[in-house]
Amino acid sequence: MSQVVSHAEPAQQKLRLMYAPIREELAQVELLLGKELSSEFAFIDQLARHGLLLGGKRLRPALVLLSGRACGPLSAEHPVVAAVVELIHTATLVHDDVLDEATVRRHLATVNARWDNETSVLLGDYMFARAICLASDLENTYVHRVLGEASRRMCEGELRQVGSRGQYDLSEADYLSIVAAKTAALCACCCRLGSHLGGATPELVEAFAQYGHHLGIAFQIVDDVLDLRGTEAVTGKSLGTDLMKRKPTLPLIRLLSEASPEDRSELLAVLGSSDDHRLERLKPWFLRSDAVGYAQQQAIVHVSRAKAQLDLVPPGPARESLRQLADFVVTRQE
Amino acid sequence: MSQVVSHAEPAQQKLRLMYAPIREELAQVELLLGKELSSEFAFIDQLARHGLLLGGKRLRPALVLLSGRACGPLSAEHPVVAAVVELIHTATLVHDDVLDEATVRRHLATVNARWDNETSVLLGDYMFARAICLASDLENTYVHRVLGEASRRMCEGELRQVGSRGQYDLSEADYLSIVAAKTAALCACCCRLGSHLGGATPELVEAFAQYGHHLGIAFQIVDDVLDLRGTEAVTGKSLGTDLMKRKPTLPLIRLLSEASPEDRSELLAVLGSSDDHRLERLKPWFLRSDAVGYAQQQAIVHVSRAKAQLDLVPPGPARESLRQLADFVVTRQE
Repeated sequence: MSQVVSHAEPAQQKLRLMYAPIREELAQVELLLGKELSSEFAFIDQLARHGLLLGGKRLRPALVLLSGRACGPLSAEHPVVAAVVELIHTATLVHDDVLDEATVRRHLATVNARWDNETSVLLGDYMFARAICLASDLENTYVHRVLGEASRRMCEGELRQVGSRGQYDLSEADYLSIVAAKTAALCACCCRLGSHLGGATPELVEAFAQYGHHLGIAFQIVDDVLDLRGTEAVTGKSLGTDLMKRKPTLPLIRLLSEASPEDRSELLAVLGSSDDHRLERLKPWFLRSDAVGYAQQQAIVHVSRAKAQLDLVPPGPARESLRQLADFVVTRQE
Repeated sequence: MSQVVSHAEPAQQKLRLMYAPIREELAQVELLLGKELSSEFAFIDQLARHGLLLGGKRLRPALVLLSGRACGPLSAEHPVVAAVVELIHTATLVHDDVLDEATVRRHLATVNARWDNETSVLLGDYMFARAICLASDLENTYVHRVLGEASRRMCEGELRQVGSRGQYDLSEADYLSIVAAKTAALCACCCRLGSHLGGATPELVEAFAQYGHHLGIAFQIVDDVLDLRGTEAVTGKSLGTDLMKRKPTLPLIRLLSEASPEDRSELLAVLGSSDDHRLERLKPWFLRSDAVGYAQQQAIVHVSRAKAQLDLVPPGPARESLRQLADFVVTRQE
């Protein structure tokens, strides 16, 4: 376990530096999260606290706060919105772990492994309900609409992904459209709300939303790559679940689209088998192809697009952190 | 199947009569639900339409509309709120079916039986997200707060129920407190929002909320009884799941609390066994005890309390329907 912690340290240190312009507000977010997830009922209290530890990078709260800070001083609404998006994100993590049948996340037992699927489904619902309650304190209908819309798109993306299981001929455009909904919509929502509440012009709010959108896409592509080639000790979560779940990820789509008809048939046979060692059997193919490199390159393209949006943003420490955060997304190992 | 339909008819006919004062608005609710759950993505469209059929009595929309109608003319907001609560309710049904491992509901295959648990979890989340989106159209922060609070209480009730699995010494007070959260909170929310939007005084809104609260408790007690002694052909859903899930329901709590120490030990042994015929084995005990009759009596007590709240409500067809609806809840066979 100490080995694992030492692997994870550098990322946390980098994040700490990037989060410096919003340090105080992030501490407020932690207080809010702790308060929101405390419960008079011991079982719920214990569950919710465990669930909260499953997140951890606090990337989404940071996006809200940095986007706001880049526009001017933060308002009292910013930490609240930041806590709301983290609750929504954590709810999806808890449900994802049911879906992926994952047993480890952030070096912790997932809720479904420690308790059961039933508890995970309810805990995710509870966290989402708490998010809605906390958002309603703001009495701001714009915030509600944007959060509702982002949640809807996330679920649509997840459902489309389920519908595309085993569809290894999924086009890259369809893959990107699913990822834009599943992962990027919430990141875009964070930046949109942060900058809107920071008093940005509609044009600038759009630029922030685009930054979040491209950052989210890059984040997901990197996640796909890490699921293929990360190590559990470093990423702190169950790996190879994409293959097991027959998800057409970008490296896989690329591998198949570039393969000869014979290779393609052979690959599809491996993918269609119920062999537990599919990941091992596919490794040589990945090593011979440009698939992983191509996926990483695409992630870098989206990070560049994200950073380009920041040209419209007034210079300062918050903008610099957003720039570094974009780079971090593609270089992270966990 | 035709047998099943003929069983179900009388209930539908009764509801049609009770819903007469809100017929047009209920038709609008159906249109809204159809529109909200349509999707450009064929897989999502198919799933959501199937999910929507799992509800059916439209009890919660009717509570919103009748509570409003009892106060005066309905506003454009009423059908929207009615559709929102039905979406939230349907989302919980879809998730409940994952939790209960139920395979049949309203004579239809549940989503988890026809597709899988993963799809059910996501579909429930999607419906809840659509509910939040639809609610945000209203630009009414009171509606948001009340909906958020009701959702939170529902989830808390469900989680407390999971935490109480196998706790057959649960007190009747704790049972009622769980049911108040799990089932009654949404009914109370429906009546609160319907009357509030209908321009009722705060005092009258409280009376409506209390009506919904007691109606919801009665509804859940009857559900517990039906799960024990209904027949699948009539109720149209999987039965005996409460026993399987080791839920301490009111009839069971009563049976155990009234049993002699020897009988109690024997009963706990049956309940603790993994015997598939527990329901059959418990039947003679139930027949000898007052447990089912007692539970039904408690349901009637709560229905009386619900109806007593209506004394504050101006007389008219909507109030009459609310009175009949309360009676229907305890006499229903499905």
